[in-house]
Amino acid sequence: MPRKKTEVTAPMALRDACIVAAQEVIAERGIENLSLRDVARKLGVSHQAPYRHYPSRDHLLAEVMRRCFQRFAAHLDARRRYEDPEQDLNSLGLQYLTYAQEHPLEYRLMFSTTWPAAALEMDVVGDATHAFDVLRGVLKRMHGDSAAMRETVDLDAMYIWSTVHGLAGVMNSQCVGMLDIKASVLKRATRHAMDRMGVGLRGAG
Amino acid sequence: MPRKKTEVTAPMALRDACIVAAQEVIAERGIENLSLRDVARKLGVSHQAPYRHYPSRDHLLAEVMRRCFQRFAAHLDARRRYEDPEQDLNSLGLQYLTYAQEHPLEYRLMFSTTWPAAALEMDVVGDATHAFDVLRGVLKRMHGDSAAMRETVDLDAMYIWSTVHGLAGVMNSQCVGMLDIKASVLKRATRHAMDRMGVGLRGAG
Repeated sequence: MPRKKTEVTAPMALRDACIVAAQEVIAERGIENLSLRDVARKLGVSHQAPYRHYPSRDHLLAEVMRRCFQRFAAHLDARRRYEDPEQDLNSLGLQYLTYAQEHPLEYRLMFSTTWPAAALEMDVVGDATHAFDVLRGVLKRMHGDSAAMRETVDLDAMYIWSTVHGLAGVMNSQCVGMLDIKASVLKRATRHAMDRMGVGLRGAG
Repeated sequence: MPRKKTEVTAPMALRDACIVAAQEVIAERGIENLSLRDVARKLGVSHQAPYRHYPSRDHLLAEVMRRCFQRFAAHLDARRRYEDPEQDLNSLGLQYLTYAQEHPLEYRLMFSTTWPAAALEMDVVGDATHAFDVLRGVLKRMHGDSAAMRETVDLDAMYIWSTVHGLAGVMNSQCVGMLDIKASVLKRATRHAMDRMGVGLRGAG
């Protein structure tokens, strides 16, 4: 029995280990330098071993992206929830920002990476859509889930997404820390922008 | 005289040619793979030649960034101007977005790149600040240029910057095109978010 277990789990372990190693290669040397050969070298396995699980480097990259979206959606789902959709949206926005701050590489892989063709084959879209649906869900509670409001829900989802995506990018950029902006302003900037965002949403609804 | 001219202009030409070649290397192989050696190879000059102008690869990268900020600020300054600060802010936002869309690499180099230490030495900060001051200028016209409003101006500058930066990132990402969002929504998304942004700014002012 133990032998059988090893036989079953070892390939699965390698499959997952490739993901971890791929993220390390990307973090160290950039996405352009990701190759299955480097992943194998990092894991101390034969050059052929990763091919058992990933037909190509792009399939591995697509799997890395897919898991990023899954973890991201799970992180958003794990936010503190509120009955009031406005409060819930605020909680979602802050939860989004903590992910971007704590996982900058994963964040970039989701939103600033050229999708490899293999991403379609591996349904990265499904996992990305699930993450987007978390935001849609809160806005449906706010605007109502009628056919008439469907476009407004999606337009506002893009508006909210853009604002928090931009906040994540600006606040995590080195550029903002270089400018002559007072520390007191930097400290309040996220709260301020989230408040303005809420006003924009209410004022127009 | 022609000889003298050649002597003077050739080094300047090489200095500028290095910038162009560096951007090509970054575009083709990622910022991690930028080296003075590759730049020299691309230009067909000796390995030592770029060192006459750039003490290190990081100095060249810093100069590339500096010029990006200069062109970016010039692009913002060249927007269609309006007396009304709200209209001018809208024009500035759209001008910002066209830069991000038309120059994605330059845009990334400004806002998504780890600044090399040489960037401080070469005053990239000065050029980045000038670009930020374009936005500050419009908000000072809106809020007034008093000491009391200085923090509000900077807070709103960060809010506006975040929103347009986010819009640029989301609309130029591959991700947004993969999601099940209707073409009519995608078409209106920028206008919608800019409108909401305006409401947020007015409503809270």
